[in-house]
Amino acid sequence: MPSGCTLQELADYTGSRLQGNAALRLRAVASIEKAGTGDISYIRDAKYRHYLQSSTASALILPPDMAQTYAGDCLVHPNPYLVYAKAVTLLHPVPRPAVAIHPSAVIEENVSLADGVVIEAGCVIGRGCRIGENSWLHANVTLYADTEIGKRCIIHSGAVLGADGFGFAPDQKTWFKIPQVGNVVVGDDVEIGANTTIDRAAMGSTLIGHGVKLDNLIQIGHNTQIGDHTAIAACTAVAGSVQIGKHCQIAGMCAIAGHLSITDNVVVTGTSMVSHSITKPGVYSSGTTIEENALWRKNAVRFNQLDKLARRLQELEKQLAALHNKGSD
Amino acid sequence: MPSGCTLQELADYTGSRLQGNAALRLRAVASIEKAGTGDISYIRDAKYRHYLQSSTASALILPPDMAQTYAGDCLVHPNPYLVYAKAVTLLHPVPRPAVAIHPSAVIEENVSLADGVVIEAGCVIGRGCRIGENSWLHANVTLYADTEIGKRCIIHSGAVLGADGFGFAPDQKTWFKIPQVGNVVVGDDVEIGANTTIDRAAMGSTLIGHGVKLDNLIQIGHNTQIGDHTAIAACTAVAGSVQIGKHCQIAGMCAIAGHLSITDNVVVTGTSMVSHSITKPGVYSSGTTIEENALWRKNAVRFNQLDKLARRLQELEKQLAALHNKGSD
Amino acid sequence: MPSGCTLQELADYTGSRLQGNAALRLRAVASIEKAGTGDISYIRDAKYRHYLQSSTASALILPPDMAQTYAGDCLVHPNPYLVYAKAVTLLHPVPRPAVAIHPSAVIEENVSLADGVVIEAGCVIGRGCRIGENSWLHANVTLYADTEIGKRCIIHSGAVLGADGFGFAPDQKTWFKIPQVGNVVVGDDVEIGANTTIDRAAMGSTLIGHGVKLDNLIQIGHNTQIGDHTAIAACTAVAGSVQIGKHCQIAGMCAIAGHLSITDNVVVTGTSMVSHSITKPGVYSSGTTIEENALWRKNAVRFNQLDKLARRLQELEKQLAALHNKGSD
Repeated sequence: MPSGCTLQELADYTGSRLQGNAALRLRAVASIEKAGTGDISYIRDAKYRHYLQSSTASALILPPDMAQTYAGDCLVHPNPYLVYAKAVTLLHPVPRPAVAIHPSAVIEENVSLADGVVIEAGCVIGRGCRIGENSWLHANVTLYADTEIGKRCIIHSGAVLGADGFGFAPDQKTWFKIPQVGNVVVGDDVEIGANTTIDRAAMGSTLIGHGVKLDNLIQIGHNTQIGDHTAIAACTAVAGSVQIGKHCQIAGMCAIAGHLSITDNVVVTGTSMVSHSITKPGVYSSGTTIEENALWRKNAVRFNQLDKLARRLQELEKQLAALHNKGSD
Repeated sequence: MPSGCTLQELADYTGSRLQGNAALRLRAVASIEKAGTGDISYIRDAKYRHYLQSSTASALILPPDMAQTYAGDCLVHPNPYLVYAKAVTLLHPVPRPAVAIHPSAVIEENVSLADGVVIEAGCVIGRGCRIGENSWLHANVTLYADTEIGKRCIIHSGAVLGADGFGFAPDQKTWFKIPQVGNVVVGDDVEIGANTTIDRAAMGSTLIGHGVKLDNLIQIGHNTQIGDHTAIAACTAVAGSVQIGKHCQIAGMCAIAGHLSITDNVVVTGTSMVSHSITKPGVYSSGTTIEENALWRKNAVRFNQLDKLARRLQELEKQLAALHNKGSD
Repeated sequence: MPSGCTLQELADYTGSRLQGNAALRLRAVASIEKAGTGDISYIRDAKYRHYLQSSTASALILPPDMAQTYAGDCLVHPNPYLVYAKAVTLLHPVPRPAVAIHPSAVIEENVSLADGVVIEAGCVIGRGCRIGENSWLHANVTLYADTEIGKRCIIHSGAVLGADGFGFAPDQKTWFKIPQVGNVVVGDDVEIGANTTIDRAAMGSTLIGHGVKLDNLIQIGHNTQIGDHTAIAACTAVAGSVQIGKHCQIAGMCAIAGHLSITDNVVVTGTSMVSHSITKPGVYSSGTTIEENALWRKNAVRFNQLDKLARRLQELEKQLAALHNKGSD
């Protein structure tokens, strides 16, 4: 039984155009730097165009413009990265565990598990949870009571869904706990990273839309809603009662303050502090970038004088304008 | 058996003044936007005053000034948010697990568990730990050896208490591990969020005071002490040997450097970098806020020139002063 | 059987010079503030020199210059902190669990565990993992399939190694998952903190070098490589395909953007955003430091005007230069 597949099979599976030897047999996908005989690789960026000559891959995945000048075997598609992703899916299938529900997992009462659900070792599924078809919980995931997970979701180890939101009423210099009686509802095709936490709503539901992708170590506060197909990178914190739109991309280690809303198609770059709502699609940023420490120490001190500096500048402008007026008398 | 309770019972339980129909039966607490028949809701902010007219809630929780003009049934208290929290506690009791110590939990030797302690599935309690009355550990919590937890604490899933502090002595370009032989001591009425980590002391104890509330994904370094009733929001990192006072509020994603102290009643806003001690109560902040990326790129570059800009400003001031002096000769 | 050890034994074990009574028996290491009879403590910093007089410790660990003027019993070494670390190791040995592989741990197929490996309760070790001699996994650690751990490593609770990297190809406004078919390879003598996550490579390996020390709640992205003996403090996020050199020190809550490289011997201070490669050893920083909120609000607004302010400054300089030229006509 031959391993791998033909270039024709890859073209069919990935929906790309075949150029060259349809019967060519590929065994693996590899990076353009390392690909050799039996490997298929991809180039998506003009920066790597020189690999067209030097690569020893058996086949390449190329955008149409590069394919025009390429004499070797290739798949042609305007989105080579997507074709690469599909080729990996075909040539390197990730095995699902043989046992659907690991015996060490703890499933509490009134839990509903649809067909094809995988729950790995050490998971704890609270009472009343519902998990949709083919969703896969890796080891040591915790779902608190009444959490709802859609179909085809992937939840990585250490993720905690449905823990209490951070809600306390001040009571004479102490804190009175507000019982968090809502839940977490996750749509279909969602991926949730390792050790990410999503809090249950105070009342109602914390909502994660369809196709949302959350990286590791992310915090999602209670009653927050994340729109379909939004992706959030690692270590970002979203406070409570935030509304994030669809198709947003939030980079790593951003902080999004509570009770604000972000419209659809917003991109936020890494380490940004979002302290007010964003009503217009676009790219938003904040933060300062590294410099040598000796210089930074001086600049950081100046930041603390910035308003004063601006007022001194204004004063100079006034004086100079007065001088000009005097000069023109 | 009637569900819910009467307005009189709610008034008694919450310590608020009843205005209207004492026998009115309430079944649930709901948000002011969604509350209907059988629901009680609250208004704490003049911003929501218009709901006095439009809300279809059966009863409201109001501050005295709003209650004066309100003809419906209500509870009156200067802190409506606290009354709301207590009403939720009465009307939406959160059930504790039927089994106190889940059979999948691992309790090592010489552990002391007081009456009413709940330890959910997958928890691991190291040797010599002590847990006070009615404390509740949710699933998959890990306590290292000798951790002490007070009474009525709530610890959420994935939290790790007592792991080694980050202590290494440089030894000819490698690191020599300093054994962390202290422990973690947590007071009464503390809540610790999901996946939060509190390191054991190098020697002595890392101390979490009474009534402290820690959100998710927080790091507390070794030998740090947090004063009573201080609250810290998600993703904040507190380094080692820090002393934080009582009644502080630290917002999310702050970074507090090692070996410094923060006095009582300090508020730190989100994403702040605390790099020196704070000796005076007040509100402290740092960081920069989002703007459109194209503008941010220019401003961030200028930040790296800030000290130079300030010196150029100073030079201009000198020159202009010289001109004035010359002009007045 | 006498507890503790003699000053001579400590000198031999720590490789330091003995000054005073070789037969003196020490029972514990203690901080300079608390040390009493039977305790040994250390001073490494001129700031604490006054303790030479006031300390009631039975013995001290001192640098040569302080030892010269000290009449008491002491160990002398240019690196007192290292001698302290070794003294703790001798006097306060941390016991390893009696049971090597806890029965509640889940070890999947084809796992290779070398001699002396300790796996505590609740750990899940995926198929094909390899763990080297004397490595110690604390409770509730998760290793995904094919993770390789070197010798003498310590992995703290809640750490997740080998979860999928965050890789998705855009596909008509949705995300197509790129299977992550690589693994994580960890060298010898590595320590990994609680709830830290290290993602498996998309292809190939995410590499953690020998002697690397990672604190808690750190994120290491797929395909990233960290050089030998580099130390990273808590809550720092390293994106994917980053190359960090040897002997670097990255402080807490830094964010390191993807696909860049940092050379050897670089120090990055806390909360820095590393958005470009660092090719020269040195100390690098970014961020702004706390100030009173009222002042910060003004300064943060000015940050968003910084480029405009700089242009206004430039304009003033031109005007003043023109005035001077005119004056010298």
